[in-house]
Amino acid sequence: MASATHLLTDELDIVIPTIRNLDFLEMWRPFLQPYHLIIVQDGDPSKTIKVPDGFDYELYNRNDINRILGPRSSCISFKDSACRCFGYMVSKKKYIFTIDDDCFVAQDPAGKPVNALEQHIKNLLSPSTPFFFNTLYDPYRDGADFVRGYPFSLREGVPTAVSHGLWLNIPDYDAPTQLVKPLERNTRFVDAVLTIPKGTLFPMCGMNLGFDRDLIGPAMYFGLMGDGQPIGRYDDMWAGWCIKVICDHLGLGVKTGLPYIYHSKASNPFVNLRKEYKGIFWQEEIIPFFQAAVLPKDCTTVQACYVELSKQVKEKLGKVDPYFDKLAEAMVTWIEAWDELNPTGPGAKLANGKAN
Amino acid sequence: MASATHLLTDELDIVIPTIRNLDFLEMWRPFLQPYHLIIVQDGDPSKTIKVPDGFDYELYNRNDINRILGPRSSCISFKDSACRCFGYMVSKKKYIFTIDDDCFVAQDPAGKPVNALEQHIKNLLSPSTPFFFNTLYDPYRDGADFVRGYPFSLREGVPTAVSHGLWLNIPDYDAPTQLVKPLERNTRFVDAVLTIPKGTLFPMCGMNLGFDRDLIGPAMYFGLMGDGQPIGRYDDMWAGWCIKVICDHLGLGVKTGLPYIYHSKASNPFVNLRKEYKGIFWQEEIIPFFQAAVLPKDCTTVQACYVELSKQVKEKLGKVDPYFDKLAEAMVTWIEAWDELNPTGPGAKLANGKAN
Repeated sequence: MASATHLLTDELDIVIPTIRNLDFLEMWRPFLQPYHLIIVQDGDPSKTIKVPDGFDYELYNRNDINRILGPRSSCISFKDSACRCFGYMVSKKKYIFTIDDDCFVAQDPAGKPVNALEQHIKNLLSPSTPFFFNTLYDPYRDGADFVRGYPFSLREGVPTAVSHGLWLNIPDYDAPTQLVKPLERNTRFVDAVLTIPKGTLFPMCGMNLGFDRDLIGPAMYFGLMGDGQPIGRYDDMWAGWCIKVICDHLGLGVKTGLPYIYHSKASNPFVNLRKEYKGIFWQEEIIPFFQAAVLPKDCTTVQACYVELSKQVKEKLGKVDPYFDKLAEAMVTWIEAWDELNPTGPGAKLANGKAN
Repeated sequence: MASATHLLTDELDIVIPTIRNLDFLEMWRPFLQPYHLIIVQDGDPSKTIKVPDGFDYELYNRNDINRILGPRSSCISFKDSACRCFGYMVSKKKYIFTIDDDCFVAQDPAGKPVNALEQHIKNLLSPSTPFFFNTLYDPYRDGADFVRGYPFSLREGVPTAVSHGLWLNIPDYDAPTQLVKPLERNTRFVDAVLTIPKGTLFPMCGMNLGFDRDLIGPAMYFGLMGDGQPIGRYDDMWAGWCIKVICDHLGLGVKTGLPYIYHSKASNPFVNLRKEYKGIFWQEEIIPFFQAAVLPKDCTTVQACYVELSKQVKEKLGKVDPYFDKLAEAMVTWIEAWDELNPTGPGAKLANGKAN
């Protein structure tokens, strides 16, 4: 697997929203330096991000996004780390690893630094098992297998589209939980990777996330957050609900568990509460919506699925708040922009047909 | 929680199929001696099982089963550890912990002996979360909680009916996997408990299993296995598929993960292959059957659900093999026997009405 990791240097981009903390790159240098970085700057374009020597990178600020996407740049959030999804769109690689700049290298229980990227690659290169639960977790891992009673017809698994990693130290809590439990730290290293079963939704966190851009990239849209929008901190959640419904429909797998990163600092719970509070209401309606969402059989590409989902968002969630009408339109704009920048992508033609 | 464990000495029975190895009870003495044991002897009734001094127990052999159940004793397997379910039926306690006699006390990564029973009790006394996946696993555990994006309306959880524990050392593999990987040992201690999501089936192993008899007992039938039957080693699997469908219907939770036991010896893979080979074919049809099974809304008790399921088994699986007709009838007999021995059990009246 070490050699596979090495090979993927040509097939994987690291996407990072604004880097405010340059220690971040120094700490990750042993693991990330062989890879190409795409940095998407979320605030004032006149500010300059200094990237330490030795890293191969491209950096996009708001002016770049506006220039490249023109009017379609409206689908990319401003002054919010949701803008990172622009990096997914401009990448030309098969795999993406995205990480926040307050995530440092974790240690395993033996004190060894965790190579998070290597574990994401392992997760993405081995199949998923969404149709039946394996009680010994990932059956493809060394020392594990399918247990007694696991149907043999399901043991080939399905391709893995998403690898969701976790966080030691500061857990990814919402503002109310942060406020109630300001001192809670995650110290439990759970040595497992598992497939989230078909039909089950999960809260996807964008802090430490790998995915196969060819398989699911066009659905990895982080929505409208931040400047001018009524909510924040739901960018990754929105993407997670969309990708899970589409992966379930297309027979693709989503894994969660290892690798851990060390999440160094909690964001301000008061600021978070302001960003989140509408989401806290809305998620009570959004989740049943996604749980009930059914995609038609003729949606055979990610783009087609995503455009179909945007219609259902408009129809069903538009009643909840006009924000969802705007979001549904932005979902279509995102697909148009994706296909413009990735014209030879699989199924782009069909999806364009659907979108128009 | 330690005090809760203590209290449950009056509310929990330990059910053990034939004890061939008396080291077993000596090893478990510190943990099991405060509890009442129900031993169900699976072979020749003239053989005597010597239980070491100090244990409070009752022992049933085949003659006892025949005497107590009369003609309905046909639903209890003979010469197979599936007979253990007779112990579930004669217990009068709220909780059951069942364990095999080749399961020893495991050690956690710090070398401390694992009190498996205490962990099962913790699992059973805290709620489950089947409707949405929590990426930090059991949200009710110390040091954990619901993560950002988890709907607040689902944070009360639902009552936990089943706690499925795992095994270090010899993994619970089927015969083909045992044959292919004779040396594989499970050495990975995964420090997690998680709810198996609604709509997802899993392979439930009876080696190390706790459940709430009041909530799910009547569905914990281990089927027809062993003497005179065409298959073996599917007793716990059968029960697992049935209980999961019924728990999903009734809004009850099923957890898997901790506690570990140390599984000391692999059973003979050649013998296992003979017992399993029909099951290996049949499970390819049984699992889609259970995945598609829908119980009517008016089935509001476990008994009513189970009798309804028996009808569906006869109708849909009877075509696969006449064995399933016999099994469907035994499922009804089991419920009749359960209700006879547990006449005041919740919903017994309704279920009897359905069964006749």
